Amino acid sequence: MSQAASSATTSSQATSSRAASYEPTERTTLTRARQRATYDEETVHAILDEGYVCHLGFVRDGSPVVLPTLYGRVGDRLYLHGSTGSRPLRMAGAAPDPGLDVCVTVTHVDGLVLARSAFHHSINYRCVVVHGTAHQVTDPEEKTSALDALVDHVVPGRAADSRPGNAKELAATAVIRLDLREVSAKIRAGGPDDEPEDLALPYWSGVLPVTPVYGAPIPADDLAPGTPEPAYLTAR
Amino acid sequence: MSQAASSATTSSQATSSRAASYEPTERTTLTRARQRATYDEETVHAILDEGYVCHLGFVRDGSPVVLPTLYGRVGDRLYLHGSTGSRPLRMAGAAPDPGLDVCVTVTHVDGLVLARSAFHHSINYRCVVVHGTAHQVTDPEEKTSALDALVDHVVPGRAADSRPGNAKELAATAVIRLDLREVSAKIRAGGPDDEPEDLALPYWSGVLPVTPVYGAPIPADDLAPGTPEPAYLTAR
Repeated sequence: MSQAASSATTSSQATSSRAASYEPTERTTLTRARQRATYDEETVHAILDEGYVCHLGFVRDGSPVVLPTLYGRVGDRLYLHGSTGSRPLRMAGAAPDPGLDVCVTVTHVDGLVLARSAFHHSINYRCVVVHGTAHQVTDPEEKTSALDALVDHVVPGRAADSRPGNAKELAATAVIRLDLREVSAKIRAGGPDDEPEDLALPYWSGVLPVTPVYGAPIPADDLAPGTPEPAYLTAR
Repeated sequence: MSQAASSATTSSQATSSRAASYEPTERTTLTRARQRATYDEETVHAILDEGYVCHLGFVRDGSPVVLPTLYGRVGDRLYLHGSTGSRPLRMAGAAPDPGLDVCVTVTHVDGLVLARSAFHHSINYRCVVVHGTAHQVTDPEEKTSALDALVDHVVPGRAADSRPGNAKELAATAVIRLDLREVSAKIRAGGPDDEPEDLALPYWSGVLPVTPVYGAPIPADDLAPGTPEPAYLTAR
């Protein structure tokens, strides 16, 4: 919470007098189902912190491109990484380059909503959409903590329990940063919204919950026998 | 398979002399990790059919927008739907409108890959990226089968076991179609790719499998007692 609190201060200075909320903009204001929108910073951070795969959108030759990629959050900053040869990371460039106009979306599916009518079928989900300009990170210290955050998003505690990147690996990796300023979350929860006249129809209705479940760890073929399974793995 | 076979014929006439593969284009040709790319139609269809949430990318006022939304596949066509008031669906318009330039991406995460080095951490995943121009569907029959496909992607068998859309609901729903022509899949599977000199390091390495798991169905508050749970739900 301390990270969130300090970033809230920064965010409020930049965009709002309210400390714990992102200021809606024209493009983060929902045109439909407005009651599902939230700009609450704690909610946004919780949705981001629960995941590790985002969908990165950018424009190339006038057309949209959407690619799945890993991310990490540090305070009010989102970090994405890739090879220095990766197209969007090259396009982002380092300041004072203009950067890359991106949209980063993180989605968790929580349930399948079955209504009596086909029309009212839906999904329970939580998603965060971030708009902004991404830039390559050049500061070595920021880059290292961003890469740690990326690894820890996938398996919390793992960054400290693996070999850190060496100079060659760091040089081959590009990291881009997107400040959390223009952000919205959208949440659908609860049961189906059937029409009153449909309630007597003979169809089952309700929610089928869904959640990602982690299976038993599969050791690498070349793992030395007897290497203990770390506690952070069984906790995942 | 009959649907896939017939759509393969159409696709091969349009883009390739090989019956079961999408023709790579400049923007579906991977610049990195090329060995992970596939254009095999059966593989692409299997990845699409396993999911129901895609990330739809489009360009609005020059900036990218990425939104999660449901989809369905019928042969070589992908269908997305939404309110007639929804921005991307309005932007797509109906032929002879120019349509909406979109990128639709579907991603399944299969495992977390833990290497000895932070650098070689990765994710096992399967994703499909579709580029193309989406148009609103105006033919009532095509629209109905598209909406059935959307419901059946979420819960196979459900479209036939719910009240079909009435005229008012169909009028309030827009469906857009994206033909599967410019398509690629990318797959990462297997264990970590550690550097030989890292193999002796004392860190656990391997894969933590992850899969979506469906919980016990939660009946709607207003479901009539004794309404049987359909078999397609317990199969999910």
